[in-house]
Amino acid sequence: MSDRFHFTVHARDGRARSGVIHTPRGEIRTPAFMPVGTAATVKAMLPESVRATGADILLGNTYHLMLRPGAERIARLGGLHKFMNWPRPILTDSGGFQVMSLSSLRKLTEEGVIFSSHVDGSKHHLSPESSMEIQRLLGSDIVMAFDECPALPASDEAVAKSMRMSMRWAQRSRDAFGDRPGHALFGIMQGGVSRELREESAQALRAIGFDGYAIGGLAVGEGQEAMFGVLDYAPGFLPEDKPRYLMGVGKPDDIVGAVLRGVDMMDCVLPSRSGRTGQAWTRRGQVNIKNARHADDPRPLDADCTCPACTGYSRAYLHHVFRAGEMISGMLLTWHNLHYFQELMAGLRDAVARGTLAGFVAQFEAMRAQGDIDPP
Amino acid sequence: MSDRFHFTVHARDGRARSGVIHTPRGEIRTPAFMPVGTAATVKAMLPESVRATGADILLGNTYHLMLRPGAERIARLGGLHKFMNWPRPILTDSGGFQVMSLSSLRKLTEEGVIFSSHVDGSKHHLSPESSMEIQRLLGSDIVMAFDECPALPASDEAVAKSMRMSMRWAQRSRDAFGDRPGHALFGIMQGGVSRELREESAQALRAIGFDGYAIGGLAVGEGQEAMFGVLDYAPGFLPEDKPRYLMGVGKPDDIVGAVLRGVDMMDCVLPSRSGRTGQAWTRRGQVNIKNARHADDPRPLDADCTCPACTGYSRAYLHHVFRAGEMISGMLLTWHNLHYFQELMAGLRDAVARGTLAGFVAQFEAMRAQGDIDPP
Repeated sequence: MSDRFHFTVHARDGRARSGVIHTPRGEIRTPAFMPVGTAATVKAMLPESVRATGADILLGNTYHLMLRPGAERIARLGGLHKFMNWPRPILTDSGGFQVMSLSSLRKLTEEGVIFSSHVDGSKHHLSPESSMEIQRLLGSDIVMAFDECPALPASDEAVAKSMRMSMRWAQRSRDAFGDRPGHALFGIMQGGVSRELREESAQALRAIGFDGYAIGGLAVGEGQEAMFGVLDYAPGFLPEDKPRYLMGVGKPDDIVGAVLRGVDMMDCVLPSRSGRTGQAWTRRGQVNIKNARHADDPRPLDADCTCPACTGYSRAYLHHVFRAGEMISGMLLTWHNLHYFQELMAGLRDAVARGTLAGFVAQFEAMRAQGDIDPP
Repeated sequence: MSDRFHFTVHARDGRARSGVIHTPRGEIRTPAFMPVGTAATVKAMLPESVRATGADILLGNTYHLMLRPGAERIARLGGLHKFMNWPRPILTDSGGFQVMSLSSLRKLTEEGVIFSSHVDGSKHHLSPESSMEIQRLLGSDIVMAFDECPALPASDEAVAKSMRMSMRWAQRSRDAFGDRPGHALFGIMQGGVSRELREESAQALRAIGFDGYAIGGLAVGEGQEAMFGVLDYAPGFLPEDKPRYLMGVGKPDDIVGAVLRGVDMMDCVLPSRSGRTGQAWTRRGQVNIKNARHADDPRPLDADCTCPACTGYSRAYLHHVFRAGEMISGMLLTWHNLHYFQELMAGLRDAVARGTLAGFVAQFEAMRAQGDIDPP
């Protein structure tokens, strides 16, 4: 294993790119979708099954892991990869986003955040320095700088103030991260939906220098049109030779739109969360397996899908086990969804490599426009 | 595939036997433990994983399946095997036991039982004739006669009265089942803890003639000593050349004791139910993974176990995911438990075949007497 973290772009089609991120724990084919393993498990899946869907990398949540079971404990047990039985690359977020959305009694200062755990109310703090230390204890391959992300809509002034603090935190994250061969630190661009602030943020990050660059502060309620508006220019502010990671995205059409605009990496809880609530994603759009129209349907979710849910089970079965509250419902639908998302990524990578992305996207949209198959 | 259902005893050691039940859907190695797939799923497991533990046959619950999704629906969808993606043998109970324990507003007469569904309160009836029809619609390979099972303790008079009605129902079940090549009908011996009533029941069943014989009315609160007391004589009242099935058993030491006394088949929800509540069964006894002593333990549940839970994960991880309420907890512990139970059955079969059952049982007891490993 080489101990160098580096990114190679192999092909371009318009602004879209496909390539490979090399890490000591394995290669990440881009554009990449990262399933989310919040609490050291991608919910309802064994890690070997996640891998079987085609995932090269998982995302872990620093906030959840620092609270339970604790970063020091995971370090004593050999690190997050060993703990959760996933030997391939792991990216961890910095914890900041979830502190603001999940914890109670937050106090935000220039120094960092003091907060109470949503699990047991215990007091904790996070700062650029402590976030770097926790992510080091977890053994994360791709470490995210500690930032603050304001909920949109917000005033330009509030977004600017927050972004500039995040840039000071980005420098402190870089300083605290130090030199860790084989591990990468990504900076996070902020700036809301303001082109000027996005450019200012990107320049600040480039001046510091990171192994990759995330586009933060999107997919936080601004809507797809506004998000694509930012993605029309923001990736262009970032270095060509480093991976660009759009955080928290998204639905299949968000993913396609982001890849078209030059994004290389994404993550979202959607495929696993949807799977547990009876929602399946297919090439012909979303299917709600709870719906009574599936109760007698002997056909699979998608006759052309090769996942275990589609090759072994009817819609009638998937409907039954969801209604009966059986765990196999979440297991099969999550597997299907992760399989569909990874198949979409493979299709996008292949289309970029062949220079046929426009045709791929037209086919993607045409299939979705057809809508789900009619009841038998 | 031969369409004949038959049983061959290959070896004996004391009263214990090992052999093979031949069915058109595959062979069942005996002594056999049948995992329970109540609602067309062995909870928290994919069927290929259940098979990987070594299971040759599953048990399905007629009561649950008739209420949801309905036996007619399953028949329209191609039968229970196809519906739940388990191509191997399935045994279904008659529904009577669960009507009495789960449904509300039961009315029991010589004709059968009228009851209200615990799912939605709808009215249903079960009789020997309707139970045979529902099990036919499900496509069950081993059909159980419809019987009544009184809770113990009960007066000899009450047990006798109930047993004699069950024997009349056994004849009606036999008549209604008819001749179905490749499918088997098992009669169920009742009689509580009375030797005289057990013998009377066995004679009634033998006079009717079945493809196999179950020992019912045990593991219903009478305790292991009383159960073994009955098993000391009851199997001997049944034909030597037919399988003997002890219903609803049990814990590992119940299983060993039953095999020693001539039982060939068993079923129990214990391994799967325990798995979902944080209980693991190992050769050194039961382990409660919830216990704080596991929180920092880097060792597997059982270092010599080859199941996915033991080969991929520490006790600390299993403790963490149970505490965090993650589905992988039930998935891994259920897999471990089913693996352990099937490994126990394989060990018993092998010991009977080699004539070394006494030594096997001594080792089984010695390992359990050691108790779980100490904290590190």
